[in-house]
Parts: sequence; structure tokens; C-alpha cells
Amino acid sequence: MSHNSFGNLLKFTTWGESHGDAIGCVVDGFPAGIPIDTKYIQTRLDLRKPGQSKFTTQRKEKDEVNVLSGVFNGKSTGAPISMIIYNSDQRSKDYSEIKNKFRPGHADYTYYMKYKNYDYRGGGRSSARETAMRVAAGALSELLLKKISKNKIKVTSAVIQIGNEKIENSTWNNNFINKNPFFSPDKSILKKWKELILTHRKKGSSLGAVIEVRVSNCPVGIGEPIYQKLDSELSKAIMSINAVKGIEFGTGFDLVNYDGTNGSDQINFENKKIKFHTNHAGGILGGISSGQDIIFRYIVKPTSSVLSEKNTVTKNFKNTKIKTKGRHDPCVGIRAVPVGIAMTNFVIADLLLIHKSKLL
Amino acid sequence: MSHNSFGNLLKFTTWGESHGDAIGCVVDGFPAGIPIDTKYIQTRLDLRKPGQSKFTTQRKEKDEVNVLSGVFNGKSTGAPISMIIYNSDQRSKDYSEIKNKFRPGHADYTYYMKYKNYDYRGGGRSSARETAMRVAAGALSELLLKKISKNKIKVTSAVIQIGNEKIENSTWNNNFINKNPFFSPDKSILKKWKELILTHRKKGSSLGAVIEVRVSNCPVGIGEPIYQKLDSELSKAIMSINAVKGIEFGTGFDLVNYDGTNGSDQINFENKKIKFHTNHAGGILGGISSGQDIIFRYIVKPTSSVLSEKNTVTKNFKNTKIKTKGRHDPCVGIRAVPVGIAMTNFVIADLLLIHKSKLL
Amino acid sequence: MSHNSFGNLLKFTTWGESHGDAIGCVVDGFPAGIPIDTKYIQTRLDLRKPGQSKFTTQRKEKDEVNVLSGVFNGKSTGAPISMIIYNSDQRSKDYSEIKNKFRPGHADYTYYMKYKNYDYRGGGRSSARETAMRVAAGALSELLLKKISKNKIKVTSAVIQIGNEKIENSTWNNNFINKNPFFSPDKSILKKWKELILTHRKKGSSLGAVIEVRVSNCPVGIGEPIYQKLDSELSKAIMSINAVKGIEFGTGFDLVNYDGTNGSDQINFENKKIKFHTNHAGGILGGISSGQDIIFRYIVKPTSSVLSEKNTVTKNFKNTKIKTKGRHDPCVGIRAVPVGIAMTNFVIADLLLIHKSKLL
Amino acid sequence: MSHNSFGNLLKFTTWGESHGDAIGCVVDGFPAGIPIDTKYIQTRLDLRKPGQSKFTTQRKEKDEVNVLSGVFNGKSTGAPISMIIYNSDQRSKDYSEIKNKFRPGHADYTYYMKYKNYDYRGGGRSSARETAMRVAAGALSELLLKKISKNKIKVTSAVIQIGNEKIENSTWNNNFINKNPFFSPDKSILKKWKELILTHRKKGSSLGAVIEVRVSNCPVGIGEPIYQKLDSELSKAIMSINAVKGIEFGTGFDLVNYDGTNGSDQINFENKKIKFHTNHAGGILGGISSGQDIIFRYIVKPTSSVLSEKNTVTKNFKNTKIKTKGRHDPCVGIRAVPVGIAMTNFVIADLLLIHKSKLL
Repeated sequence: MSHNSFGNLLKFTTWGESHGDAIGCVVDGFPAGIPIDTKYIQTRLDLRKPGQSKFTTQRKEKDEVNVLSGVFNGKSTGAPISMIIYNSDQRSKDYSEIKNKFRPGHADYTYYMKYKNYDYRGGGRSSARETAMRVAAGALSELLLKKISKNKIKVTSAVIQIGNEKIENSTWNNNFINKNPFFSPDKSILKKWKELILTHRKKGSSLGAVIEVRVSNCPVGIGEPIYQKLDSELSKAIMSINAVKGIEFGTGFDLVNYDGTNGSDQINFENKKIKFHTNHAGGILGGISSGQDIIFRYIVKPTSSVLSEKNTVTKNFKNTKIKTKGRHDPCVGIRAVPVGIAMTNFVIADLLLIHKSKLL
Repeated sequence: MSHNSFGNLLKFTTWGESHGDAIGCVVDGFPAGIPIDTKYIQTRLDLRKPGQSKFTTQRKEKDEVNVLSGVFNGKSTGAPISMIIYNSDQRSKDYSEIKNKFRPGHADYTYYMKYKNYDYRGGGRSSARETAMRVAAGALSELLLKKISKNKIKVTSAVIQIGNEKIENSTWNNNFINKNPFFSPDKSILKKWKELILTHRKKGSSLGAVIEVRVSNCPVGIGEPIYQKLDSELSKAIMSINAVKGIEFGTGFDLVNYDGTNGSDQINFENKKIKFHTNHAGGILGGISSGQDIIFRYIVKPTSSVLSEKNTVTKNFKNTKIKTKGRHDPCVGIRAVPVGIAMTNFVIADLLLIHKSKLL
Repeated sequence: MSHNSFGNLLKFTTWGESHGDAIGCVVDGFPAGIPIDTKYIQTRLDLRKPGQSKFTTQRKEKDEVNVLSGVFNGKSTGAPISMIIYNSDQRSKDYSEIKNKFRPGHADYTYYMKYKNYDYRGGGRSSARETAMRVAAGALSELLLKKISKNKIKVTSAVIQIGNEKIENSTWNNNFINKNPFFSPDKSILKKWKELILTHRKKGSSLGAVIEVRVSNCPVGIGEPIYQKLDSELSKAIMSINAVKGIEFGTGFDLVNYDGTNGSDQINFENKKIKFHTNHAGGILGGISSGQDIIFRYIVKPTSSVLSEKNTVTKNFKNTKIKTKGRHDPCVGIRAVPVGIAMTNFVIADLLLIHKSKLL
Repeated sequence: MSHNSFGNLLKFTTWGESHGDAIGCVVDGFPAGIPIDTKYIQTRLDLRKPGQSKFTTQRKEKDEVNVLSGVFNGKSTGAPISMIIYNSDQRSKDYSEIKNKFRPGHADYTYYMKYKNYDYRGGGRSSARETAMRVAAGALSELLLKKISKNKIKVTSAVIQIGNEKIENSTWNNNFINKNPFFSPDKSILKKWKELILTHRKKGSSLGAVIEVRVSNCPVGIGEPIYQKLDSELSKAIMSINAVKGIEFGTGFDLVNYDGTNGSDQINFENKKIKFHTNHAGGILGGISSGQDIIFRYIVKPTSSVLSEKNTVTKNFKNTKIKTKGRHDPCVGIRAVPVGIAMTNFVIADLLLIHKSKLL
């Protein structure tokens, strides 16, 4: 039973609401002896932190993480690692209207119907603020993977499409991704994206995005068929991120345009290594990593919080209108990038431990 | 830890290999007092059964299910329900070549690397034959949902694209789906699909397909945020089906072409009911069912078993060529339809029990 | 996979070390709409709090609990409930000797061998200080049971033996239990227990205790056979408490002195109720509650921290001697009483939710 | 959620009723490459098999196990291992009376109240017949432990008390245990036990028993605190066995007669090994194996099925009398011995895999 926990041998549990006192997580099943650099966790959080550029929400949160347990003498002890971030810039007044109305496209209506008593302030538990703790937990799993794989396994991710502006595959540049506020791997598209976002921000609207994740040097054998397949677990992980509406691996939905002859990846043995001619499969065969790069993409819908007036209903089921003022991301997909990286690292670390346990 | 089990409060575990003595499953956590009609389970299995038309594999399996436990006086007892299907048409000789070579696009290479000793005959554990037991388990969960929802909740699914031939949304006809060998909801496309499949079958190739699932009358409130969201659990379920490479909900990947103003579903209260103007969200908000139809699509890649010769490698890591003879589906996506229905029913039944447990 | 979590549909996860900054827990799967009275949780914690009488440890901890999430407008929201207690009186210097030596009877040696890097201060993670958070989580589950059962289900517990001084069954007085520092149900034994404890405290030694738990008005049907039996889950829960070395239900080990004729509980129907003649079974048949009082006992060993010198070994595996100074409980079993109550409430609440989910 | 499954990384699920067609289990998470000798599994089952001497039930079951999946070329493949035993000697007529009456001391009443529709024949799902599949699953885990520990880890178990006749600790002889129908480690007590059992059998009554389990050469470090402690998991396992009413580790309940000075185990380093002076702790400190022998005892109550007439109630809640004829064990504790061994092997194998997964 997971509810608010994710993972198996390695597991994290998050807690906290957008406008409560604090948010936090507990990472359990973390091996002892792993160097834990709190500053590194903070750098990962800083990548997701709001209020950093005019392309993201103007809510200002320091997102300063405290590690409260499970670390001794700079290393993990095998005990649960508890982390906490105190909320600082809640400004609850901005959200007063949502006390009585359901924001279209948000979870207000379903939370109300399921729980009746729920914390509506800033979206409460359903707010993407929860994803900060995924980044913290993901950073821990990254430190674990670094240690186990001797720095080999590397998860990279970038935005590849905003609105209808998509990068060409050939223009992907790993080194550029963290050097621009869009996590774009392609310098040439920046101008278009800036214009798109500023235009939408100005009119109080928002944009969707497609994000790609690539994992290099993942060893062969990660993933437990039939119901803990690597792609199955990654899908569960990514689809749990706010606003994500789809995921595809390798050639994905476009595979419907291929046939059996050209849609699978032929194999050769070269220089003492298995070499796949192509990567339609996205690095996963039968739910198990094949040693190729693991590649997948996911779509983050445009934020539903926009300035234009929309039809909705009150908690007393009267028809009404709503404009969501607040401070919102014009393209929330951008800030999803570090979250997707975190979840990917976590899934791989968890499945790696499971795989390891079965080796004689 | 799931491995070969799926579900939480309601759980099934499958076992068995394609060319072993039998395949089976155990369904646990099933409430007592539900009428169990074995014939109904059989009719669901028959929909997936191989060898029924020239558009699917020619392997002949009766797929006759036996219920071995958990049912007494025609009703469930709350004890685990064990079901078994004996394999009858294994013809192992057809697969002799795969003993020493890895079939491209299949799990042979990854299973060999992960397990060393694995049953390669007919793909063994990684064969889609395993999905027969999902259909059996799914049929049980369907009987449970029927009872709980008084026949209201209904999962429907159809193939909406084969190769590059896609149906128009407006042509969807529920009643036609089970009246044609393609599970097509659109009579007008049949001719094109027949031609496509027969052409590919003739040249020993295969085709991909896109499948859509629709759930009607799912009550509001199903799904447990943050890590047991309804879409997250459905994605895990569907992505665990053989050859599936992507999934999307509601408007899915196409949402990148919408903005925040037109990409969310406005709400009204009409005739004492909540009414959504559109269904971009696919019936799920914040991971919880909204009462709208739940809608998602998934891509099934073209079978990798084709007659054209491909490059591959032996278990001794020598380069070689392979042609996969055997008896294969020219469009395996067709037979995935009842499997997707089964998994969807199971996920909803499981999450419904969880939801119910928390109601005071 | 549980590690530091306990429960199924209702689950808590604890974190924190004896001499770290704080200890805490996250309770997940808690239904929405339950009134949460933080003061009540505090009163439960106060029962376990150290430093309250000369019969327990002199460590002074306020054990002030903060609820950080999951509660809104005084009621639970269905979101995880995070609670934290900051440590205030750590006095690490008292424990400096245990940095390099293994205390006999404690977990030092096994933690060192398992984790190498572990927090030895005050026993770190293995300290009974962790049980404070069980009491907090248990108090929440008690509030839930009160609501669901309309105040009917009631867990009572008392010390029934300290050293070789045991109460007579006939002298059990529910009302007296919370009116004395020993949680004794029998006023007449107090004098003997006081003398025993003060004598042992004076010579720096300690005493074991036997504790009995009684649950009244538990409805019939709680417990899920075969591997979530009520007695099985309670045993797992109680045996996880520090220093507990055994548990027995109903007549327990003494049943070996009965035969099949007199060792089972005959049944009658009287005044529209099932009436059992005796309660050898402890209120559980086939792992399911029978409606009788659930009765079990557990043994808490004498604290191993004593002033007399003992043989032990250093972390460099040299033979040495150790005296454990610190501030310790002369009879740690006394403070286990509220912990056992908490775990019992939690197990019953969890299994009650599971049972409820399966009712049609 | 376990219900009818036991274990974590290594898990088994049992199914089947006493008088149904068959009973079976699925063992999941079993590593690949372990030699699986079906004959060995059969020898373990034969130890528990009914009808072997006049000291056990006269029901005749061949208990012939079939392995249906997960084994290829004589070795495990990492896929789930399904095992089945067909029931042969059901004789349902013997149990006709229990269709309408609740047998005192049995689960009839609680199953009826929980499930309404349940298989009452021979106790159905609540029958100890289910434990045959635990023995089969336990045998697999034993094969796994043999391989991993190079035949070092060894679980031994014996009956140490029947009725009021108890063996002396000093008379324990490992080699004698499997050479007598009582699993007695002490030849000198056989005469008394025979008399006791034959006397009770003659008058249609039954006897309780205490069983001791010893695990030698378990490595240090097995067990995951706080809620997967080795003793906690073993208690859960053993308490799930039919008719078990208590468990204690090491000195157990008798520790209440010790004080902190003499009740803990002092340590020395001798001949390059840690040596404990005593074993009050039963080989477990802080929930983790210490390398000492793991020692625990459990009580199996006298079978409630006896020939003397008892008061009970019908399903219509009328008072009535019942005599349980059938074929029953005069001392069911004897046949519990191989079941306790199986569960112990399984717990240790499971926790060993978990421990292994965290080693860097």
C-alpha cells in the first residue's frame, strides 16, 4: 500500500501542504555508508526553486532543506533520513477565492468530493510544491547511484517542446541544458521560447511542454518482470507528477508508423560490446534495461491557473465564474525537469537494489 | 514488493511460461459473496484466445480455465481464488533456434543477462501468453465491480489505429467493437485494416496499433494521491503489458498544442449534476476520478517476430542472423484489447476498495 | 517492504535518533474528517514521558508534539499527518564510553556489524526513545477507532508482574491503572513493587516485567487470514518494541497443561448474544476476532544498562569491561505500557479498515 | 498488503481449501540459478504428511507435490515457482455436521461472521492442511539458504514438551529428532509421551505441545530495524501457524525472574571470534541476528476437535451440542514441527536477501 510513499526496497514518503508550516519527506531503506552532502541536495532543489526567472512563478521560496536524521559523521547510517523544508512565502490571501470555488483543471473538485475536509490553500496537498521533496529524495538516490556505479549512471533531462515549438533531435547539447532558464538542450530555440512564454504570461495564459529524459550507462538487468518492469515503474513515477498527461519510451507512439521489420533494434557484437543499431525500444526489453540509453518523454499540460474567466461551480453547487490570480508558472513544464530527473534516479536506485539482492 | 503480483487490497499473482505445463494466477483480497460465473471468465478469455481468425497467430490454444479454490456454492468465499490453464499446443520445435540466439526486439538478451538460466521456449515467462491470466483475473474484478456498482461501471476498449490507418473519433460505435475481429469501433475502416494486415502477413511482417480505453460511470473519488493516483496506477498496469511503449490520458501529448485558457475543462452544474464542457483531462483530476469518462490510449509496437532476416548475436556473443519463423500475430495490438480492459477493471476495483475503506 | 514503517492501509513511519535533533513520524492512509485533538495526543505521550517519578529514568524530556500536516480546521484531511518532537535533554557526554565499546544486551554490536557507520549516542536509532512516536501514531489511531466504533472499542493495559512479584487475576481494577506510577491494576501489590524497584535502583540494577493488554468491544471479524491474522499482526507489533522477548494470547503457554476437552471455549447463545464460557483463545479464532475480549501478555526484559561491571569488547575487538552509567529505567517495562496500547490500537484500526473495505 | 502472502523480497502465496480439488502456492522473488531438487521438497513434505503413525491423524494424503513453473534445466529461473498438491482423501461426509454448527475452538464461527459464504468442509481455508504449502515454500527457501551460505545455516526444531511432560535441556540430541515419530530430541522421554498420547487418543481427547527452534550459523546482521526485526518477523510467521498461542525468544518469559546484572549476555573476543557467555537474548539484539544461535519456542494448543460433547450454537443461533468425530491429531503440535522449520527458513532467506541488497 503506497498512498504517499514511493518505492520498494528504497522508499520515500512525502508529507505537507503548499501553505502549511512545512513540507518534508522520509527516505527509508537507504544503505549505510553513503556520503551525504547536504549542499548537493540543496543545489538540486535550487534547480526547481520558484521565483528564479521571469519564466517561472514569482512565489519566492528559499526551499532550504534540513536533514534531521539518518546521517552521522557525514554518511548515511541505514536509519531513515528525514528532511524538512519550512514554507516561508505562503501569502494565503492570494488564494482566498478558491475556498469556495473549484478551479477548473485543478484537483479542487475531486479533493472536495473525496475528502470533504481538505486544505484548499494554494492547492494544499495537491500543489506541485510537494515535488520539492521528490527532488530532495531523488538527490539522495543520485548520491547512492553515484557510489554504486562509480559515477557512471547519469540521468539527463531537457525540455524539448514548448507550445508548438519543438527542438530538432540533432541539436541536443547536454552542456547547454543547465545554462538557460528553460532546461533547453538547444540554444537556437531560446528566442522562440522566450517570446512564446512572455506573450502567454502577458495575457495571463500558460503553455504545455514535452520533456525528454535520458539515462546513460545503466547496467543491463535492471527491472523485475512482470509487474515491476523498469518502464512500468518509471511510468508510475512520472505519471504521478502534477500535470503530466502522457509518457512514451523510445520511438513511443510513433512506432505505429513502423512495421516489424524496421521497428525493432538489430544487434551486433563489436569491440567486445553489444551494439544496437537503433534505439526504438528506449533501452528497455521485456521490462529490463538492455544497456542502451534509457529514453522517454512526457507531456506536461499548460497550467490551468490563468487570468481569463472560466465557468465553474461553488461548493454549494451554484454556477459561477473564476479567474485564478495568484502567482503561477507560465510554463510549469520547465520546473518539472528536476522532478523527472529525481523520480528517474529514485526508480533506478530502487530497482538496482532489488536486482542486486538476487545476485548470488 | 510486487515482482509478479499486481494490485494492493485486491491483488493477483501470475505464474507460468509459454511452453511450460500450465499458466495460472491467484487472486487475493477478493471479497466474499460475489457470484462467480466461470463461463463468464471463459468468454473474456475467448476474446483474447489465439487462432481465432487469420488476423491473429495460428497457435491453437483452448485456453480453458479451471477455478481451483476460493469459490463455494457459486460465490467467492474471501479466500484466494486460484485459476489454471493447461498449455496444449506448445510445439517447442518451432522455437529451437532461439535457444542460442537473441531475437531482436524481444526480451531474450535481457533475460539471459539478468537470469542466465531462463526458459527460452516461446519466450518463456516473457511471452504474451502470460496475459491470458490477466484476462482471467480482470474478469473476476469485473464481476466485483458489477456487483458493487450495480452494473454501472463499464470499461470499453477498441483499436483506433493500425499502421497509419486511424479512425475518426466521430465514427466510434460501441456496439460494433465485438462484432469484428479487429475490435474496431468503426465499420468503415475494416477494409483498409484487412488489406494492411494481409499484406504484412504475406510478407512476414507486422503492424503496430493504438488502442483506446473508456470507462463510463466511474464514481468520483477513486485514486489515492500522491503515489497511488488513478492515472499513475493505470499507467503502471498498462505499461506492464507486452509491447506497449506509451500511454496518454485525455488529450494527452496533443495538450502541448493547447494553452491554459483552452486546455482545461470548465465546469457547470446542470440537472443536478456536475457537467464538464470538455474532457482534456481524461476524467482524472489530481489523480482522482472526476466522474467524467476516464479515457486513455496506448501504443502497441509491431511484433518483432518477422520473417525477414535480422542481425543478432548468439549466447556466445558471435554475430549471426536470425529469421523468426513460428506462428505470430501480424498485429499483436488486436489481442491486447481484452488485456487492457482486464487491467483497467482490476485497477479500478482495487482503488475502489481502498477508497471504500476510508469512508466513515 | 516495511523497514521503518508499520501497518498496511493505515501506516506510520518513524524516524530519528535518541540524541539527534528530533524524532518524528508520518501517519499515512488516515481517513479524512476525524477530529484531531493535539492535546489528547500529548496526554498519551505524557504517560510514556521519562523523568516523571523515581521509578523511571531521570532523563527529562518534555516530549512536546507538533503536528505539521494533514490536519485542517481541527480535522484530518486524508493527507499524511506528520508529527515531530524536538529532543531537548540529550546530554551526550553521559554516553561517551559507548562510542568504542559494545554494551552487552544492547544493539551496539549488531548495529556496528550491520551498518558500520551508526549513531551510537544514547543508542541512536535503537533507543526506546523511538517508541514515543509510536505513542503519537497510536493516539491518532485511537481517535480513529473512537469515531468508527462510537467510543466502544477500548484498549486497556497494565503491568501484572515485576520481578517475581505477580498480581492475582482477581485483583485487576481498571480504574486504578492510571492512578499509580507502575500502571498496576492492583493496589495491594504496590508496596512490594516499590521496594523491589528502589532496591534494584539503589544497586544500579534493573527488573523485568510482564504486561497484559485487554481489548474490549472489538467487533467480530477483524483480521485477515492466513498471513494477516489479528494475533500474527499484534505479535509482529509487540515484538518490535524494545526489550520484548515473548508474547502469548489467552491462556498462552499454559495451554500445554490443558487437553482438548477443557482447553477450548464452549459457546452459548444467551440474551441475543454469543457467549463463550471461557477465554482460553484470547478472543481470536483462526486469526479473526471473535467478539470476546482480546487478551495477551508480553515480557519486557530487565534493562541491560546497569552499574555493575560487565565483560565486553571494543570496536577494535579487544576484550574490556564496561559499566553503563547514564540515566536508565530501573524497570523499563513500566514505560512500555503506553507503547503496547498504541501498537494495539494501531493494529486494530488498520485491520478494521481492511475488513471494512471488503464489506459489500 | 499480504492477506495470503508471506514475505517481502522473497514471497509466497498459498491457496486452496482442505477439501477442495487442490492446494498450492506460488513462490515469487526467488533468485535464478538455484538447483531445485523436487525430491528434496517431497522429503520435507513427507515429514509433515498425515497418516504416518498412530500418533497423528489417520487421514491419508500422499501430498505429492508438482512444480509447474519457474524451474528450467533443474534450476530456478527467477520466474515465480508454482507448486500444487491435489487433495485425494477428502471424505467430506465425515464433516457433514459442521455445515450447520460452529465447532468450539475452531474458526467456524469467525469465518461465518466475517465471510458468510465459506467452505466449511474440513475447516476449508482455516484447516492446517494449508501448512503443507508452507513446507513446500520453506523447502525452496532452504535450498536457497544452502546455496548462499554454503550449507552453513541450519534450522533445527524439536518438540520439547507434550502435556506436562517436558524434556531437560541437557538431553537435547540433534541426531535423534528425525528418528522418532514425535520429533523428540530426547530418547528418554519417548515412553511417557507415547502413553500420554495413546491415553488421550483413546478417550478422544488431545494434547498441547511446546516446540523449540534453533538456527545455527546465521550470519550477523540479518533483520531490519525497526519494523522488520528478525524476532518480529519470526513471531509474525510462527503466530500465523494454526493453533499457536505464544512465542518467546531466548530465556523468554522467564527473563522476568532475572535482573539487569544477570539477564544480559556478556561478550568476549576469543580465537578471533566474538563469544557470548550466555544466550538469554536468543541470538537477536535490537532485532538483528548477533551470530549466536537463534533460539525460540512456541506453544501449540491441544486440538479442539475431541469426542466429548461440547456446547455450541448453530448458524441459526440455536443452542446445541457437538462432538467432532472426523480423523484428528491427538497432538497436532508434532506435525507443526516441519511447518515451523519452513517458516523460519523462509524468514531468514527473505531478510538475508534484504540485507544483501544494502551491502555496497
